[in-house]
Amino acid sequence: MNLENISQAKVFGGWHKQYTHTSTALDCDMRFAIFLPPNATKETPVPVVYWLSGLTCTDENFMQKAGAFRKAAELGIAIVAPDTSPRGDKVPDDPNGAYDFGLGAGFYLNATQAPWSGHYQMYSYIVDELPNLIEAHFPVTQQRAISGHSMGGHGALTIGLKHPDSFCSISAFSPIVNPMNCPWGKKAFHHYLGDDRTTWAQYDSVELLKTQSSIPPILIDQGDSDSFLTEQLQPEKLMAAAEQTGHVIELRMQTGYDHSYFFIQSFIEEHLDFHATHLFPNTDDE
Amino acid sequence: MNLENISQAKVFGGWHKQYTHTSTALDCDMRFAIFLPPNATKETPVPVVYWLSGLTCTDENFMQKAGAFRKAAELGIAIVAPDTSPRGDKVPDDPNGAYDFGLGAGFYLNATQAPWSGHYQMYSYIVDELPNLIEAHFPVTQQRAISGHSMGGHGALTIGLKHPDSFCSISAFSPIVNPMNCPWGKKAFHHYLGDDRTTWAQYDSVELLKTQSSIPPILIDQGDSDSFLTEQLQPEKLMAAAEQTGHVIELRMQTGYDHSYFFIQSFIEEHLDFHATHLFPNTDDE
Repeated sequence: MNLENISQAKVFGGWHKQYTHTSTALDCDMRFAIFLPPNATKETPVPVVYWLSGLTCTDENFMQKAGAFRKAAELGIAIVAPDTSPRGDKVPDDPNGAYDFGLGAGFYLNATQAPWSGHYQMYSYIVDELPNLIEAHFPVTQQRAISGHSMGGHGALTIGLKHPDSFCSISAFSPIVNPMNCPWGKKAFHHYLGDDRTTWAQYDSVELLKTQSSIPPILIDQGDSDSFLTEQLQPEKLMAAAEQTGHVIELRMQTGYDHSYFFIQSFIEEHLDFHATHLFPNTDDE
Repeated sequence: MNLENISQAKVFGGWHKQYTHTSTALDCDMRFAIFLPPNATKETPVPVVYWLSGLTCTDENFMQKAGAFRKAAELGIAIVAPDTSPRGDKVPDDPNGAYDFGLGAGFYLNATQAPWSGHYQMYSYIVDELPNLIEAHFPVTQQRAISGHSMGGHGALTIGLKHPDSFCSISAFSPIVNPMNCPWGKKAFHHYLGDDRTTWAQYDSVELLKTQSSIPPILIDQGDSDSFLTEQLQPEKLMAAAEQTGHVIELRMQTGYDHSYFFIQSFIEEHLDFHATHLFPNTDDE
């Protein structure tokens, strides 16, 4: 199987479509979803925002609940939402079925430890395989931005920071910014990566910030009523690292908002506007 | 239990909240959700759009997937989404667990036949009990509009047509307009109401239209790629009845759209604008 269309629905004049394909990087069949705005044609390809979801999610959570298509249709931006881990019967899962490790919890890294390393290569999938597939088969340009929520905010930040030439802007909702030092991250990194903290640092936004000479534009929204704020998310650590390294990151603490898609839908249009200013850099000059 | 708040999340400056309560009409515990826009206060109460969902849904489908809150917050309109049937262990269900009858499929009528009549009284619940509860406990006015999808479009049309003094405007997505003459409706009406078709006619929009001297403003959107269009929905029957009786109904056939929430989210803002013109009748004069 390579690239099989399994659903499509018209939305805001564009199309939401789901596909399955066989992933080389992950060694399993994967599903992703794409939103194509009404103006996306072979003759007029559009840029892409890659959306990385959080723990337990699939391609469907963002596409069904974020309310992003009205603005994406208006701006002329495609959105691609991959799954959050390799999938299938042959893919190992947390032996206790925990929600925060294994299936649905790939943490956007390349695992080095057995039995995880055979399939859990989400970093390579998001950085290389998926964009190449999208750009080969859909009416899109090579202009890319990246965004995500929670574990997916961690994925967007780490991947965006390491690949400024591939992704022109980064945004995140409620990201895990310092997985090396929070319970979710420590559990996942221990199993996927072993116990060498220099390897961990390659997937930690706070640590990556210290190694970059320049960074893409970054917008982060964080609800101050998010129940994971203090123990897992800790955006203040990213801001401290930014200040220490002289990098500029916009963090907006949003009063009263929690960790849910109700929070995401409240601000996703502003994130798309933010990415549009970088995906369409010449708009103001025309 | 009466009126227990079980969840709340800030969204677009307002609040999405879920409540449970013991329903007298349905003789069971029920859950509903309410969106309150930012300007809803005891001093400045807001009007309410009641949203009735389709087969298999609960209060959550619309609230999570319709993308309605941006516009509702802007307009200052509350939205109430009830469940689609009585619920609980003591409530009888389709013996085969069918999706189109029993739990999740109350059809917004008052059942007359055993064993359904003890709990399946969704008509009374929507017409009387729920609005009274909402108006007693939340910062809302008595200005109401009603809308819904599929089976809920049937509910919105029939209830709105029978209670023009309670609901100032009606809208529907993909409604079942002539349940007496489609498979979903015939199955449900047979079990809930017995086989007297004069009883059926009390819950059939096409038949009700013929008995009304005047009707509220009605807006209907229907996708022409809806797989249920020909067999179950048949909006042309409602338009024929409207023409025959001299009533005006706006039906918009939307090219390429299906029966999903992707369709609903594409046009829900226009429905809220439509209801706003009737919920705020003096806006233009101010």
